[in-house]
Amino acid sequence: MRACCAPHTPLFAPVGTQATVKALTPDQLEQLGAGLVLANAYHLYLRPGDQRVAELGGLHQFMQWPRPILTDSGGFQLFSLAEQRQVDQEGVTFRSHLDGSQHRITPERAIAIQENLGADIIMALDECPEPYDLEYNRLAMQRTHAWAERCVAAKQRQDQGLFGIVQGGVFPELRQQSAEFVAGLGTPGIAIGGLSVGETKSEMHSMLEVLDAALPGDRPRYLMGVGAPEDIVEAVMRGVDMFDSVLPTRLARNDAALTRSGRINVRTAALADDDRPLEPDCDCYTCTHFSRAYLRHLVVAREMLSATLLSIHNIRMLIRITTELREAIGEGTISSYADQFRAAFAEPVDLQ
Amino acid sequence: MRACCAPHTPLFAPVGTQATVKALTPDQLEQLGAGLVLANAYHLYLRPGDQRVAELGGLHQFMQWPRPILTDSGGFQLFSLAEQRQVDQEGVTFRSHLDGSQHRITPERAIAIQENLGADIIMALDECPEPYDLEYNRLAMQRTHAWAERCVAAKQRQDQGLFGIVQGGVFPELRQQSAEFVAGLGTPGIAIGGLSVGETKSEMHSMLEVLDAALPGDRPRYLMGVGAPEDIVEAVMRGVDMFDSVLPTRLARNDAALTRSGRINVRTAALADDDRPLEPDCDCYTCTHFSRAYLRHLVVAREMLSATLLSIHNIRMLIRITTELREAIGEGTISSYADQFRAAFAEPVDLQ
Repeated sequence: MRACCAPHTPLFAPVGTQATVKALTPDQLEQLGAGLVLANAYHLYLRPGDQRVAELGGLHQFMQWPRPILTDSGGFQLFSLAEQRQVDQEGVTFRSHLDGSQHRITPERAIAIQENLGADIIMALDECPEPYDLEYNRLAMQRTHAWAERCVAAKQRQDQGLFGIVQGGVFPELRQQSAEFVAGLGTPGIAIGGLSVGETKSEMHSMLEVLDAALPGDRPRYLMGVGAPEDIVEAVMRGVDMFDSVLPTRLARNDAALTRSGRINVRTAALADDDRPLEPDCDCYTCTHFSRAYLRHLVVAREMLSATLLSIHNIRMLIRITTELREAIGEGTISSYADQFRAAFAEPVDLQ
Repeated sequence: MRACCAPHTPLFAPVGTQATVKALTPDQLEQLGAGLVLANAYHLYLRPGDQRVAELGGLHQFMQWPRPILTDSGGFQLFSLAEQRQVDQEGVTFRSHLDGSQHRITPERAIAIQENLGADIIMALDECPEPYDLEYNRLAMQRTHAWAERCVAAKQRQDQGLFGIVQGGVFPELRQQSAEFVAGLGTPGIAIGGLSVGETKSEMHSMLEVLDAALPGDRPRYLMGVGAPEDIVEAVMRGVDMFDSVLPTRLARNDAALTRSGRINVRTAALADDDRPLEPDCDCYTCTHFSRAYLRHLVVAREMLSATLLSIHNIRMLIRITTELREAIGEGTISSYADQFRAAFAEPVDLQ
């Protein structure tokens, strides 16, 4: 483990897949302390179209988010959401999950789309396989490396930082090889893909330890798609700086709150007369105003406000944890912080 | 028409049926200038229960709305939403629209429920018939009068203002009679029920003119359930002070925006590249930040934020109109204001 290499890491980035963090205004996101927000090139390319976003002034103007934005290249979505996908050395041909229309994304196209969208941090196109097939992971890693080189070459805008992406499944030798290759590209940050995609927690931790040793210490390391509190703590202990996940907002829409002692099912009848806040020491708008009884009422009455208030709390919870981790790193107390966190935290029953 | 009789009227009250104005936080409601908010005794009696709300500190504490609250008695819902309804002289027996459970509401029970909820303004129990049956309207009016007397007698809390409700369908002689009776109760405000329930606009205007002449000028007049911009202007011209309606939030959830020149269907493809705000001169959060193109994107992508942003605009539009009407009354320019409003406004195609 090493001290964080950038002033504002570790950080958690809420996800605004379609240029909106679900159920929240930019004002609310700013108030809860969000810095970086993630948006998705695959979704925005299909709708409303990256060219349209460019003509409307770019993503910052379009979604009215004045702080940094990161766009995912679409690699993950091409391998999880798109239909009739065909991969070749040059790129990916697929049908839209929205209307079945046919599209083709190459590394050069992925960069052009992200240059149109205009985020501050953009991602190389990668191939994200399931984690256990050694031969497929080797092939996908090699393709990801070749595509990353083409992305670096295709990049034209000087005001965006491009991150390369490490792949390699659950195979230490592939992860080592991928870390060395991507580090050699000289990108200002390095993303870690292909984790939290079906492997065990223990396997994820092992891969992060391999990467912690293999990656350079002078550039931020971004663990893509990870955002459970317990995963953030363990990953920061293994040198990760940046996180994003739909988890806090998706849980909110499914009536669950994240707390230090685990997840709360806000629908449960036990909360009907509970006048306490979700988390007594939390400083978020939800916890400083509303009782568990009110939140439970909103959930039972199927009121949209429940998704908003639970999203505020859940995102704030992750931002507070990353802030505390940052302070603990600065004070050299990260190990005891992690021990305390683990002792208080109950493993969640998966509510997704 | 007469000058308004209370300092902050005419006013429009957004509706928080289930102790939440749909898709908005209390913070957002305060920011857009809402004063009075309406909640519904019928809904809150059934869920989460008025006794529970009382034990949790009352509605202000429960929903965290620090400004005035008005609760409807449930009369309207008993006659529009409840199932297997049986009315007698003593009260109403019905089955819940939620779970079919049987309940009975009397005038005394309606007051007790509203005293538990703890709003600032509460309503007498009334019977709200369809507007064209003379004999039924006469019967319902007489029952409404008898129930209003019992509500006045049953009321115990000194910190709540009870309004009587005028009924009488589209029949001038009934409306005249009801106005005189309700005025005689001496309640601090007088509500006008049984309008905007199927009659024509012309019939509504006629009834308001009858009531404008028949009602005392020293107490606010509250036209229940009316909130279309054109109806507000015409009703203020006929002496009405207070309005409530689900219209602005319901339209918002159905992708429609209220403007001075009529309604905008935000889903229409014509907005896809429109970088203007919904209404160029509007001061709301939505109009000062977001383009029509972005709002249309949210609607097409089925993002919850569209309901929030359109609700903010639609409610703010009605609050601005009532503020302008107040100023025009003060300046003696109400007739020319109304003429200008009518000239600009296009009759809406009903999108509900």
